[in-house]
Amino acid sequence: MNLYRERIRRLQALMQQEGYRLAVLSFSDQMRYLSGYMENGHKRFLALLVPWSEEPVFVVPKMNALEAARNPAQISLVYGWEDATGWQDTVRTLFQGWDIRPGQAVLVDDELYAVHLLGLQSIAPNLNYLPADAVLSRLRRVKTPDELSAMRRAAEIIDEVMEATLASLKEGMTEEEVAALVKKQIQQHRSAPSFEPLVCFGANAAMPHHMPDTTPLRRGDMVIVDIGCTWEHYASDITRTVAFGAPPDEEAERVYRTVAEAHYAAFAVVRPGISCEEVDRVARRVIQTAGYGENFIHRTGHGIGLSCHEPPYIQEGNPLPLEPGFCFSIEPGIYLSGRYGVRLENIVTVTETGALSLNRPIPKTLPIIA
Amino acid sequence: MNLYRERIRRLQALMQQEGYRLAVLSFSDQMRYLSGYMENGHKRFLALLVPWSEEPVFVVPKMNALEAARNPAQISLVYGWEDATGWQDTVRTLFQGWDIRPGQAVLVDDELYAVHLLGLQSIAPNLNYLPADAVLSRLRRVKTPDELSAMRRAAEIIDEVMEATLASLKEGMTEEEVAALVKKQIQQHRSAPSFEPLVCFGANAAMPHHMPDTTPLRRGDMVIVDIGCTWEHYASDITRTVAFGAPPDEEAERVYRTVAEAHYAAFAVVRPGISCEEVDRVARRVIQTAGYGENFIHRTGHGIGLSCHEPPYIQEGNPLPLEPGFCFSIEPGIYLSGRYGVRLENIVTVTETGALSLNRPIPKTLPIIA
Repeated sequence: MNLYRERIRRLQALMQQEGYRLAVLSFSDQMRYLSGYMENGHKRFLALLVPWSEEPVFVVPKMNALEAARNPAQISLVYGWEDATGWQDTVRTLFQGWDIRPGQAVLVDDELYAVHLLGLQSIAPNLNYLPADAVLSRLRRVKTPDELSAMRRAAEIIDEVMEATLASLKEGMTEEEVAALVKKQIQQHRSAPSFEPLVCFGANAAMPHHMPDTTPLRRGDMVIVDIGCTWEHYASDITRTVAFGAPPDEEAERVYRTVAEAHYAAFAVVRPGISCEEVDRVARRVIQTAGYGENFIHRTGHGIGLSCHEPPYIQEGNPLPLEPGFCFSIEPGIYLSGRYGVRLENIVTVTETGALSLNRPIPKTLPIIA
Repeated sequence: MNLYRERIRRLQALMQQEGYRLAVLSFSDQMRYLSGYMENGHKRFLALLVPWSEEPVFVVPKMNALEAARNPAQISLVYGWEDATGWQDTVRTLFQGWDIRPGQAVLVDDELYAVHLLGLQSIAPNLNYLPADAVLSRLRRVKTPDELSAMRRAAEIIDEVMEATLASLKEGMTEEEVAALVKKQIQQHRSAPSFEPLVCFGANAAMPHHMPDTTPLRRGDMVIVDIGCTWEHYASDITRTVAFGAPPDEEAERVYRTVAEAHYAAFAVVRPGISCEEVDRVARRVIQTAGYGENFIHRTGHGIGLSCHEPPYIQEGNPLPLEPGFCFSIEPGIYLSGRYGVRLENIVTVTETGALSLNRPIPKTLPIIA
C-alpha cells in the first residue's frame, strides 16, 4: 500500500476508535505527512479533509487544483474553488454529504489560520473543534528507519556547516553576515534551512531567539549559533556556543561547563519508559544546583521530524514516556541578561536501550575560537 | 509621536467607534505594522494585545521577553510566560483586568494559529471572535510616502533581478537552478525573497503555483517567472512570461497578446473611485472576448505592502472603491492545461488621477529568449 495511504488509514482507525468525525489539515507538515503534498495557499483556504471513514478530499484554490491532483497519496477528490465565490460553499456541501452532526469532534490543524477556523465555525458552529496535533503526533512521533535516515543526513549536513561556520569567524563580521554564510553553505549542500539561522554575539546571546542584526564580532564575545536544515523535508537543529578570542569573563567557563553537564546528564537518562518531564528535570537540576535555575528560561527540548518543532515537548508537565524512535532536541541554556548566554543542543533518538545523538559530540569545555 | 504609537492610536479610535473590545495580533505583518516588532513564536503563543482604550501589551514566551521589550513602539508591558505553565493564565488575568464582557467583539489576527484561537475560545468562550484583517486593512491599504518609497526600491531590485534572470536562461537549466539563481541575486542586492520564487517551464506553466522542480529548460518552452523581494520589509512581486528559443505553437503569440492586453486594459481603468471588482471585470472581459474565459482561473490581483498578499483583493464581489495610495498587483493569466500558461504581473499604485506602475513596462508581444 502507498506509504501515505497507510498513514491515512492509521489516522482514520484512530479517529473511529476515539470518535473524531473529521480532520481538517492545512498547508503544514500534517498535510505533507498524510499526502506527500503541501502547498502554501498564500492566505487562501487550502486543506486536506479526512473524514473518519469516507475517502479524503482536497479543497484548494482552483489555480492549485491541477498540482494538488498529482498528490503522492493519489487522493483523487480535489475540489477547486474560485476567488469570486470563495471556499465556504464547497466545504458546506461536503459536510452535508458526510452527514456531520452537531456536537461531533473535528480535528483542526494547529497551524490552520484563525480566519479559516472562524470560517469553519460559521459554516458549522455546533461542532467540537480540537487541535489535531495531539492526535497526529501519536502517529508521527515514532520515526521509521526511512525517516531516521533522512534526519541523519540533515544532521550530518548541519554538523559540517556548523564546523565550517565556527572556523570562519573573523573579528568585525556581523551576525547577519554569519547567518548569510550559513544559508549559503546549506544551499551548497543542496539542502534548505529548517528555520532562519540564529547568530548571537555578546549580550545578544542572552536572548535565546535574538535575530541576526548588524552587531559586529569582537574579541571576548560569547557566540551562539543555532541552525538547522532539511533533507527530504526532515529537519535538523543544532546549537553551539564558543568564545571568540577569549572568554568574556571568569564566570564564562563555569557557565559553559554547567550547560554541557546538564546536556550530558539529560542525554544519559534517555531511554524507553522515562518521561519527557523527567528528562527536563534532570537537565534543570544540574543548572539549579549550580545556582543558575532562574537563568534557564525555556524547556529542555522539542520533538523534531518533518517539523522542526513538534511533539514530544521535553518539559515539566509532560508525563509522556519515551519510546524507541522518538527524536528530540536536548538544549539546556543559561542566559545572563546584558552579558551573554550559553546554549548547547544536539538531536537525539531513543533506541531500545538508551539514546543516540544524531549530531557530533558537544565539547565539554568552552571552545575558544582564535 | 512615535510612528507605531500613532498607528495604534488610529486602530484604537476605530475600535472604540465600531465596538471592537480587543485585537489579538500574532507574529504577522499586523504585529510588525503596529509595533515594529515581529517574532516567530515557533508555534508558541506570542501576541500583541490591543484593547480599545487601555495600554497594549505583549504576551510572549519568557525567552522572547527581553527582545520584545525593545519593540520600537515602546510598549513596556511585556508578559513572559514559561513553558512549564503555559500562556493561558496570563491572558485570562489580562482579560479579567480589562473587564472583558460576554458578547464583546474581539479581533483576531487572520494568521493566528488555530490552536491559539481554540485556546482563547476556551479561556473566554462567549466572545465574538472576528478576523482582524478587515479592520486593520482600512489603516494599512493607503500607503504613506515612506511606505511607497520602500516599495519602489523593492520593485527596482526585482526588476533588475528579473531582467538578469531572463537573460541568463540556458537550455538544460532546471527550474530549481533558476530559482536558486533568483534567490542568490536577491541576496546580492541585500534584500530577501518576499515568497519562494516560482519558475515554470513548458506544461508546468499551466499551473499558476507550480513549485520549481528538476524539469530542464527546452527550446520551445514557455517560461513563467514569478518572483518578489522586500525592502525595509515592504514587498515587491512581478511576473514575466517568455518563450525560450521559439514559441511553443502558433497560438502562443495570441495567448500572450491577450494577457498583455488584459493587463493594460485593467491598468488603464485604475483611478480613485473605481471599484476593485470593476478592475477585475475589465481584465476578465478581454480574456473572455478572446475565448479564454475558462482559462483565467484566479482573481486579477491582490494588495501588497508589508504583506505580499493583503487587501484590497482585485476580484469579483469586492465593491471597494480605489483610493490614492492603494497598491496592488494586476496579474491576469491564461492557463492551457498540459500545454503552457501566460501570466503578466506588475504592481501599480493609485494616484490622484490614475495609476502608476512600480515596475518596468510589460512587453506587449511575446519575447523570445534566444
